[in-house]
Amino acid sequence: MQHITQYIQEHRDRFIDELFELLRIPSVSALPAHKNDMEKTAEKVKSLLEKAGCDRVEICDTPGNPVVYGEKITDPSLPTVLVYGHYDVQPVDPLELWETPPFEPVIKTTKLHPDGAIFARGSSDDKGQFFVHIKAFEYLTGTGGLPCNVKFMIEGEEEIGSPGLEWFVKHNTGKLKNDLIIISDTGMISNEQPSITTGLRGLAAVEVEVKGPGRDLHSGLYGGAVANPINILSRMIAALHDENGKINIPGFYDDMEEVPDEERKEMSKIPFDKESFERSIDIPGVYGEKGFSTIERVSIRPSLDVNGIWGGYTGEGTKTIIPSKAFAKITMRLVPGQNPGKILKLFEDYFTSIAPAAVEVKVTPGHGGTAYVLPIHHKGYKAAYHAYKEAFGVAPLPQRSGGSIPIVSLFEQELGSKTVLMGFGLDTDAIHSPNEHFGLFNFFKGIETAVLFYRFFAGQ
Amino acid sequence: MQHITQYIQEHRDRFIDELFELLRIPSVSALPAHKNDMEKTAEKVKSLLEKAGCDRVEICDTPGNPVVYGEKITDPSLPTVLVYGHYDVQPVDPLELWETPPFEPVIKTTKLHPDGAIFARGSSDDKGQFFVHIKAFEYLTGTGGLPCNVKFMIEGEEEIGSPGLEWFVKHNTGKLKNDLIIISDTGMISNEQPSITTGLRGLAAVEVEVKGPGRDLHSGLYGGAVANPINILSRMIAALHDENGKINIPGFYDDMEEVPDEERKEMSKIPFDKESFERSIDIPGVYGEKGFSTIERVSIRPSLDVNGIWGGYTGEGTKTIIPSKAFAKITMRLVPGQNPGKILKLFEDYFTSIAPAAVEVKVTPGHGGTAYVLPIHHKGYKAAYHAYKEAFGVAPLPQRSGGSIPIVSLFEQELGSKTVLMGFGLDTDAIHSPNEHFGLFNFFKGIETAVLFYRFFAGQ
Repeated sequence: MQHITQYIQEHRDRFIDELFELLRIPSVSALPAHKNDMEKTAEKVKSLLEKAGCDRVEICDTPGNPVVYGEKITDPSLPTVLVYGHYDVQPVDPLELWETPPFEPVIKTTKLHPDGAIFARGSSDDKGQFFVHIKAFEYLTGTGGLPCNVKFMIEGEEEIGSPGLEWFVKHNTGKLKNDLIIISDTGMISNEQPSITTGLRGLAAVEVEVKGPGRDLHSGLYGGAVANPINILSRMIAALHDENGKINIPGFYDDMEEVPDEERKEMSKIPFDKESFERSIDIPGVYGEKGFSTIERVSIRPSLDVNGIWGGYTGEGTKTIIPSKAFAKITMRLVPGQNPGKILKLFEDYFTSIAPAAVEVKVTPGHGGTAYVLPIHHKGYKAAYHAYKEAFGVAPLPQRSGGSIPIVSLFEQELGSKTVLMGFGLDTDAIHSPNEHFGLFNFFKGIETAVLFYRFFAGQ
Repeated sequence: MQHITQYIQEHRDRFIDELFELLRIPSVSALPAHKNDMEKTAEKVKSLLEKAGCDRVEICDTPGNPVVYGEKITDPSLPTVLVYGHYDVQPVDPLELWETPPFEPVIKTTKLHPDGAIFARGSSDDKGQFFVHIKAFEYLTGTGGLPCNVKFMIEGEEEIGSPGLEWFVKHNTGKLKNDLIIISDTGMISNEQPSITTGLRGLAAVEVEVKGPGRDLHSGLYGGAVANPINILSRMIAALHDENGKINIPGFYDDMEEVPDEERKEMSKIPFDKESFERSIDIPGVYGEKGFSTIERVSIRPSLDVNGIWGGYTGEGTKTIIPSKAFAKITMRLVPGQNPGKILKLFEDYFTSIAPAAVEVKVTPGHGGTAYVLPIHHKGYKAAYHAYKEAFGVAPLPQRSGGSIPIVSLFEQELGSKTVLMGFGLDTDAIHSPNEHFGLFNFFKGIETAVLFYRFFAGQ
């Protein structure tokens, strides 16, 4: 059997041509004008899956853009891996900041990518990354070395929050049945230090309203005798954290799962340069819960942020009023063990309990999502670990992300299977920004890693 | 000499006709479309002053709308009273809520005004109220009983903040020289319990900005490790008051003048019904500094209110960001003794001192105005006291207003004289609102009181 690196070398130009064809279709899910492009892209993905060796490929209707489903069932007694990806892309604005047109892919070298990178919208997020798996699959089926069953589910609405995916998954649990899901839609620390995302934080969103007087009042005639809803809201927000940066809501931390010592030890190896972190987001200094590092604060610790606040007069000059109402939007990031519904209830109970009697408080719970964790002893993590280690020549580090990928929790809930977040991108890929790109090194190393993954996972 | 009440009875219809003519001119200073109406109104006021007996009347240019100046110098050795008023009015929006057209005055009876009230924009604020003084003056000059010199200064920009008045006063200090100023542009407690406004709070305005990261950040990827400017601003605002509702800024109360016991005793007689106060502004309960009554909180105590706050995402749904910046507009109401400039400096020092190092804070001081107080032993207060007492048959109460009338401080500063705020309106007059009106009782009692005032002031 031909080695994967030889195969890549031999088919390199075709791989790039095929990916370029896919990148040329402007499948921007956020813009209705691109509706036809969504269909065209789905057709293109279908044909790529067919050519790569799927037995059965379907374009499946959903309430929104179609999902492309493909499968190759080698032997029903073998384990089944489901590959998830998305063929839709982010809008391209501001277009004037693109050095080359977003839907005319080109290869250019950069400091981080001396061997070249593919510049195009969707190159890293996520056309280039799911294409990696199609090519690994092509190699394995073509050379007769596919050691398990493989299914593909490539959706077209990820960039708008996957509104139709829950419907699709719930209506196709039999078809989507699997032993492990792999997703390449994240990044890794660097090309020299690969990493695997093993955790995602959950989310609990809430909007609050504090009502004082029935109408805006003259702050001269009433100031001092009436509860000002902005002053009160500020005090209530302040009371959500204690002086050590801990969240003050009673019961908030009760259900948190412990992070195993071994994983914390591995995580502590993640390189972190405080100065360059601070510089990258232009802050005078880091800030957060006492007793935890920055990496811990954004990954294994929950957080509470006000995302927006408003009330009263916000125009030019001065308007001396006591406003009738003040509002804030607040989200909490949760860690494994915390239930969003319970957290929202704890928030509401506490927030209303600290309101003075002189105001009325309304708490409107928003959406929630549970956190996700892939234990580092899980079979899927181990297979990925060995695959990265062999392909990159460096053992990957487990890394928990502070963000949320709601579909991962959806899959665990509906399909009962864990997901390995096998990202090959870099933070510098400029996803969602002008000049998105995906390194050729990452592209080809990704294919190699994916091939090795199947072998380790199937125990070969 | 004919008694004033007889004179009013005899000339009642003419008084009403003349005031109606004045009210028919739509002198809305806020709207450039009414520029011509401002000139017409100034001409009308000039002719009214001439007919009432002024020796000299001028329409004086200012950087904005003209000031109408008139005088009658009976004897330079007698004291001089300057009457201030304004001929401009508020806009009429929302027009559809007016029961009769705002510039077509009519007399209608109401529950509070069984003898009728004049409904028109400007009837109470301030055309009707300064017209009271023109008629009192007409009576006194016509009957040869004017016991002092009188000057009139009727401006046309009060409703837009008197932008040109400081210039006018500073350039005419000789012409405006006086021993006492009287202004009828406020209200009294009720027709059964007259009151004289003896104090006004000052003002110090400030805008604050708290800057965290250089751009909005993803609250998942960064939440917990970066100072959120909204959370921080909320905490800083919370720190501006202590748990007893006292303002927490070091030195804030240092320069406050004591309120004399006698005045506090008089003030405590002001009727106050907590339930109807709460109902009138639709609040669940009053709220403020411990140890003080509601009336004290809004008159003899300083206050601090956030008038507006904004930052982050305030649209529909959720946007999970840590915003780059958060802002607030804050005003403090000051009491006699407090210097706005010093208070703004104390605010800035304290506010920046409580900011954590992880944010940058910008404090932009805005405009300020000193508080005003007319001692109840002042000759002007005493004359007004006796005039109200005789006209209404009830001793008036001294009342400090929580609001600010910057021109009163301007007059004290530039002309060196005290002002008696001899208001004849009621809180229910709907000034600045649809269906503004001025009771005929108030109109005629006002004329009677003004006449008596001159006599008491001149010591007759």
